[in-house]
Amino acid sequence: MSKTSQQIAEICGVSRGTVDRALNNRPGINPETKEKILQVAEQLGYRPHFLAQSLVKGSTRSIGAVLFDINNRLFPQLVNAIETRASELGYFLYLTLTNKDPEKEKDCLQHLVDRKVDGILLLSVNKGEAFEQFLGKLNVPVVTFGNLVSDGIPFVWVDDRAAIRDAVRHLAAQGYEEIIYLSPPMALAGKTNLYAVEQRYLGFEEAIAETPGLLTDIVLHKGYLEEIDALLRRGDKKKVILCTSDKYALKVLLHLKQKEIRIPQDVGLMGFDNIDTLAYISPALSTIAYSSDDVGTQAVDLLVDRIAGRDVPMRTTIPHRIVQGESI
Amino acid sequence: MSKTSQQIAEICGVSRGTVDRALNNRPGINPETKEKILQVAEQLGYRPHFLAQSLVKGSTRSIGAVLFDINNRLFPQLVNAIETRASELGYFLYLTLTNKDPEKEKDCLQHLVDRKVDGILLLSVNKGEAFEQFLGKLNVPVVTFGNLVSDGIPFVWVDDRAAIRDAVRHLAAQGYEEIIYLSPPMALAGKTNLYAVEQRYLGFEEAIAETPGLLTDIVLHKGYLEEIDALLRRGDKKKVILCTSDKYALKVLLHLKQKEIRIPQDVGLMGFDNIDTLAYISPALSTIAYSSDDVGTQAVDLLVDRIAGRDVPMRTTIPHRIVQGESI
Repeated sequence: MSKTSQQIAEICGVSRGTVDRALNNRPGINPETKEKILQVAEQLGYRPHFLAQSLVKGSTRSIGAVLFDINNRLFPQLVNAIETRASELGYFLYLTLTNKDPEKEKDCLQHLVDRKVDGILLLSVNKGEAFEQFLGKLNVPVVTFGNLVSDGIPFVWVDDRAAIRDAVRHLAAQGYEEIIYLSPPMALAGKTNLYAVEQRYLGFEEAIAETPGLLTDIVLHKGYLEEIDALLRRGDKKKVILCTSDKYALKVLLHLKQKEIRIPQDVGLMGFDNIDTLAYISPALSTIAYSSDDVGTQAVDLLVDRIAGRDVPMRTTIPHRIVQGESI
Repeated sequence: MSKTSQQIAEICGVSRGTVDRALNNRPGINPETKEKILQVAEQLGYRPHFLAQSLVKGSTRSIGAVLFDINNRLFPQLVNAIETRASELGYFLYLTLTNKDPEKEKDCLQHLVDRKVDGILLLSVNKGEAFEQFLGKLNVPVVTFGNLVSDGIPFVWVDDRAAIRDAVRHLAAQGYEEIIYLSPPMALAGKTNLYAVEQRYLGFEEAIAETPGLLTDIVLHKGYLEEIDALLRRGDKKKVILCTSDKYALKVLLHLKQKEIRIPQDVGLMGFDNIDTLAYISPALSTIAYSSDDVGTQAVDLLVDRIAGRDVPMRTTIPHRIVQGESI
């Protein structure tokens, strides 16, 4: 690129370094200067062969993100945080979706590596030794969130176990005598990486062990609405349904409304995630909140540190808190 | 790739074409055969240099999508439809986000082209002759949706103008005497590509021209909640607020609830898009529905046709319908 970038530098009256910064979308340059450089570059018909150049320079200033899907409202929130932070740091983001298919996930990772991204953010459904080896062979920095893959790969997330323990204690303190624990994704236990939902379940087991009087019902499958109906007809304890995500809590809320079962008078309801959809929901859903912005921002920061060869902590825990709402 | 793929073909007892199909993730192959081929390829340490290969073959079996953001619930729905269809057709999807920044949008397009995608789906904020030339120079098939860029680029969307005309007629038939037309994005008119919202506004003007007795108030800026408060205090006509997207209708709904203004008794409310969040909203929002799945699916189909060099229609209109709800 030397000859043309020298020409651009002379025309614009700036250094080669400044031209380089503008053409590679790196920070630390006055926006007006950048604009001028890009205009001159365009007039000269200058467009560096990006990939050939990246092979030499070893950096494409781009990162990839591998997520499940964007159905659960939580994921778009995360993506926006990731995109915003990556953009601030001068990185371009490629988003790819796995639909929770382990093979598709490996395809996504390989595609991103083939396209020379500098690093990858991963919400994985894969786990285990073979997958860790697969990741190692990719030879690109990876930061995970949501589901832990390995203690040797940086991981950013909430402390799911402590969060559910706090929720159970909170519900017991509110006078609930029976907790219906709802976590349909657990039906896939053993088949896929379910770290987050498994941690929540462990937290639930720990909490009930320390609260002997509490009755519990555990619903871990897709036919949960029918089972909830049956459980609500049984006994006269003060009941609450604790859902491991707001997504399911909203489905239950809709179902109970249709059945004219009142929340919280007839049964309490609690979710997890504090997704922004809750602003429009009545009664206001009690839930566990944490900052999805912080998850996304810190994951990008860790990845950029890793790309720069800096040491980073293997665990970053995002704080959580109980949101009381009107549903318990 | 010839030598190794020949070797894989011999070991697996299949044709070179079948090996090619498996390694390039193309349809028309038995899943078991594909699995076997991929295993043998891995054992042989075979990994085609994807980009070098793509330069020769002229195809990477990947497409890019350029969208605003994924805040409005409509966009995740579209992305899921696009991803599903692309996957079915054996294409890998890269999603990029512009945050409605015209320069970022051009960056996204150039990044995707540099990475040799076969085609691009575009929801544009750019418009005008210079941008059309920019797109032309990219030399890659493009299909647009949401905002029209040019009559010469395939465009998939709902007939916004007819949809709003239908909505106004429907509201007049319901006995509404005054319509508050709410479209805050119009504040950016002239600065960015607002084709969809501008078409909706034209449809509104056409509809009120044919309904002489109808009073109208037009609110096209960010301070809309205060203006709605003022408008609702004024006069005694039967009023309805017609919002050009559900996103704004939900903000208005929340605001009215907080003010204890009853919907529809005190004022009617209507949205546009029928986003899936509406399932949880009470009172059920009246809106204009269309299939975001069809938008995504047909956009991908048109793009794949264009990639294959086939002629495609320049306009594809997705049907719309009024959803009555409980809010009017």
